[in-house]
Amino acid sequence: MNTSYGSFAIIGGDKRQLFCARSLSDDGYAVTLGGFDSIARMKNVEITTPFEAALMSEVIILPLPCLDSKGLIPAPFCRENITLSDDLITAMKGKKIFCGMKQRLESSCSLLTPYLYDYYEREEFAVCNAVATAEGALEIAMRNFEGTINGAKCLVTGFGRIGKSLMKILTSLGADVTVSARKPSDLAWIELMGAKAVRTDELYKEGPYDIIFNTVPAHILSCVLLAKIALHAVVVDLASGEGGVDKYAAERLGITHIHALSLPGKAAPKTAGEIVKNTIYHILEEDDR
Amino acid sequence: MNTSYGSFAIIGGDKRQLFCARSLSDDGYAVTLGGFDSIARMKNVEITTPFEAALMSEVIILPLPCLDSKGLIPAPFCRENITLSDDLITAMKGKKIFCGMKQRLESSCSLLTPYLYDYYEREEFAVCNAVATAEGALEIAMRNFEGTINGAKCLVTGFGRIGKSLMKILTSLGADVTVSARKPSDLAWIELMGAKAVRTDELYKEGPYDIIFNTVPAHILSCVLLAKIALHAVVVDLASGEGGVDKYAAERLGITHIHALSLPGKAAPKTAGEIVKNTIYHILEEDDR
Amino acid sequence: MNTSYGSFAIIGGDKRQLFCARSLSDDGYAVTLGGFDSIARMKNVEITTPFEAALMSEVIILPLPCLDSKGLIPAPFCRENITLSDDLITAMKGKKIFCGMKQRLESSCSLLTPYLYDYYEREEFAVCNAVATAEGALEIAMRNFEGTINGAKCLVTGFGRIGKSLMKILTSLGADVTVSARKPSDLAWIELMGAKAVRTDELYKEGPYDIIFNTVPAHILSCVLLAKIALHAVVVDLASGEGGVDKYAAERLGITHIHALSLPGKAAPKTAGEIVKNTIYHILEEDDR
Amino acid sequence: MNTSYGSFAIIGGDKRQLFCARSLSDDGYAVTLGGFDSIARMKNVEITTPFEAALMSEVIILPLPCLDSKGLIPAPFCRENITLSDDLITAMKGKKIFCGMKQRLESSCSLLTPYLYDYYEREEFAVCNAVATAEGALEIAMRNFEGTINGAKCLVTGFGRIGKSLMKILTSLGADVTVSARKPSDLAWIELMGAKAVRTDELYKEGPYDIIFNTVPAHILSCVLLAKIALHAVVVDLASGEGGVDKYAAERLGITHIHALSLPGKAAPKTAGEIVKNTIYHILEEDDR
Repeated sequence: MNTSYGSFAIIGGDKRQLFCARSLSDDGYAVTLGGFDSIARMKNVEITTPFEAALMSEVIILPLPCLDSKGLIPAPFCRENITLSDDLITAMKGKKIFCGMKQRLESSCSLLTPYLYDYYEREEFAVCNAVATAEGALEIAMRNFEGTINGAKCLVTGFGRIGKSLMKILTSLGADVTVSARKPSDLAWIELMGAKAVRTDELYKEGPYDIIFNTVPAHILSCVLLAKIALHAVVVDLASGEGGVDKYAAERLGITHIHALSLPGKAAPKTAGEIVKNTIYHILEEDDR
Repeated sequence: MNTSYGSFAIIGGDKRQLFCARSLSDDGYAVTLGGFDSIARMKNVEITTPFEAALMSEVIILPLPCLDSKGLIPAPFCRENITLSDDLITAMKGKKIFCGMKQRLESSCSLLTPYLYDYYEREEFAVCNAVATAEGALEIAMRNFEGTINGAKCLVTGFGRIGKSLMKILTSLGADVTVSARKPSDLAWIELMGAKAVRTDELYKEGPYDIIFNTVPAHILSCVLLAKIALHAVVVDLASGEGGVDKYAAERLGITHIHALSLPGKAAPKTAGEIVKNTIYHILEEDDR
Repeated sequence: MNTSYGSFAIIGGDKRQLFCARSLSDDGYAVTLGGFDSIARMKNVEITTPFEAALMSEVIILPLPCLDSKGLIPAPFCRENITLSDDLITAMKGKKIFCGMKQRLESSCSLLTPYLYDYYEREEFAVCNAVATAEGALEIAMRNFEGTINGAKCLVTGFGRIGKSLMKILTSLGADVTVSARKPSDLAWIELMGAKAVRTDELYKEGPYDIIFNTVPAHILSCVLLAKIALHAVVVDLASGEGGVDKYAAERLGITHIHALSLPGKAAPKTAGEIVKNTIYHILEEDDR
Repeated sequence: MNTSYGSFAIIGGDKRQLFCARSLSDDGYAVTLGGFDSIARMKNVEITTPFEAALMSEVIILPLPCLDSKGLIPAPFCRENITLSDDLITAMKGKKIFCGMKQRLESSCSLLTPYLYDYYEREEFAVCNAVATAEGALEIAMRNFEGTINGAKCLVTGFGRIGKSLMKILTSLGADVTVSARKPSDLAWIELMGAKAVRTDELYKEGPYDIIFNTVPAHILSCVLLAKIALHAVVVDLASGEGGVDKYAAERLGITHIHALSLPGKAAPKTAGEIVKNTIYHILEEDDR
């Protein structure tokens, strides 16, 4: 990576952003942390206030999401709230700002543009996080299932990025993998890649399974289906929002059921931070061209 | 499996033996548990005293090891000690007895023969448990390492059964895998199977690693080597006995270090129990021939 | 497969269509061949004229393409030309007709509708043929390259269906695989799946390669690039039409260069015929719903 | 590789030895060919008589086997016979000599020792050639089978080096793979690695297969077994000597049957030559230690 920008401020965020800072610093950039006052020190990285950090740096990196529901910058390592104060806005003005879910920022302060970028919107960010999510889901399944993955009967619902990653991981570990999808071409890929394919509307025909990974953000694992294919299964729900599993039914049926959200940041913050960094690098490179 | 034996007693043992019982019962055999009095009930399986269980069954299954250092049959699910009493010996006499580490039994009671078998001695038992051990080691690594396995720099020392299983699992998850061995032919296999090979006496030349799995039961990960290749690594030591890592050095150096023993029974008791069952089936089949 | 149609006519086509007939017949359907008069006999399959075949069957299957540049139905196993005569059209009228590139048929006879289907247009047809193409390309590479694929430095240009299939095959055989693409998200997938990624506009920076597979239908392998990265390589060009390799340059440079088209039908006619059959089944099922 | 020897003579041999010469020369060593007078020239490599080549070099490399049944050094690129003349023996005396099947040389001339090494005896030579053999066998299967390997029902008899390599290659290409073995531990490995295991004495119970690879040097594919499991199969026999297939039965039954010997040298002479070189390097290194 060759960028003409030499100094980065990381303002707010959790372990993921700390690892992003670590990785930027290891690449030789000057990095300043703002909003991490419960961190005593970090090698080669300066720790100061958000305002100072913004002032000192050419590029500002905000967390994902950049603002929480109260309009604050999420900062679990900071004892005080970080608001998007006028001072902070002034310090950031005219600089390149990277964040996740930039629309939250746009609505509250239009001054910051024209250099506001959203790494969360980038396709390669989603791809890399899908693999980290799949690994995190595997770890959860391993912890909760009393057998080995090798030989376990696994279902993956959905053949998006996460479904694809899970299929690859599970088949290569020797599981007996079924993946559900709707499109005939997806069903063809699944079979060709060594798993069994099942149409989403025929899920009830197969099973029961030892482990079920849901990636579909719709209530497809209904009470009836759970009772049919999941009664003795560990169910790992990766769908955002409400998830895709009827939780009350799962509880009533005594099914081990884990709704796992934001896995990359939790299970692999180091990799998650590097993904943020790499995505920012790509955007900077494209801008330079 | 078609065996002429219809009834099995599981006397003593932990979760692994319970799953062995479960699996035997699911195959249609009459199963009686002895030494599990803290288990209230189990579908289709009778729970009674060791003596009664032995008396009622044609085949007796003892745990691994069959006797602990005090000469008792290990029975964590039993409130009382299970001794190899004269009554129990009489009840088992002339029956087929399966156990782990049979030499411990032979020394204390020579009456039991000639039908005493050791499933732990069987090569296929070791092979299947190696895969379960490798998966358990992966789970430990995932829990302790802050990045993903995909892209992580991993070292596996030793190219025995567990080393081979780990190499396969880690390469298929996309790790950057190095395996150490001594024999040129092992080094050749390692390279041909897609990992990097390093000679055991040249371990110090490579690294540093993110994750190190030791399978060699000798102190190869000395203080000097740890400082050179493991300073920021998660070290999972799978070697039996004292392990292969200088623990005091690891602690002084602040290295995350886990000595993980008996992983199959702990991380995957269901699979471990099925491995016991399958090995017993093999021995019975061979005997029948 | 449960379809209410019981009789199929295969009119025209090569080995692929013969295997399609074989496979339909093995599934229990009545199959009649028309336009295969150089075939003496085929078990359980009737061989007759195109007209009779069409008359006797509920479903008609035409080859890919259904008409050649002269307006004839391609029929290498027939001594005479098969024209789309008025008689033949009448015999097919009102029946379900499956073909490849149906627009060629629509323009010349609009009477045939409304039951005219194009299996070649279907996404799952393309997916399955991509895997067959990748295998055919591997076979060509093996025949022409004097080393093993294991350890060979391979380039795959393009990350479409065929590029993805080739990447999977080559990495799993232990090749050192580089894949070129444009989109950052494709480059991310490539790296995550265990290959090296290179941007299409930076192809000149890597290499040289032992084997190059081109899947991009644009002249990307120019004289300059060939001289830089392909001088000692076997080049397998899979791009349709003119291909993606500067043939004259390749010849001048003495590069082994194979332009391989229609690989599924040539290298794996049995699988290719089954793909035709399965795609037709899917269309019939969807129609029934 | 750091060896104190700077000059190598390649005396006799086929394309494999030529690639060995090429590779040695590329590593920076002085290489002289003897017994290749139908080769006009080779970059950076001198071509002369066997006697001169031996005289000029510190290390002598003879082919595999080093002597044929007539006592000549095999030399397909030489118009004249190469005998182990007194002159040649004198020129080689006291030098390091590498060959395949050294016992043939020992019997005819005991003067050459003590520096006579056999690369063919080395385990890593066999391992690397097993992978090359497996690839060559795959190529033959692809050429002769009319479907894709993906989805094909394949049998591999024997779980030695070649069987292991074939199992890995075929499963990773998506074939439906069965491997036969005798030992329960081998059967366990096979299942754990994702293939189906069948006991050698129960081969008749499974099948029929699309492709059969035999690696067992015993007549296991008898007439009865062929008729049962191989009637429509492509049979690739890799067993040395007489092979493991009843050829006359295979012919009578109309089974496509290829007895493929010495595949590494034929299908991948470049890799085969590099394997010779690497094995020689290992031996020299061990000697130096």
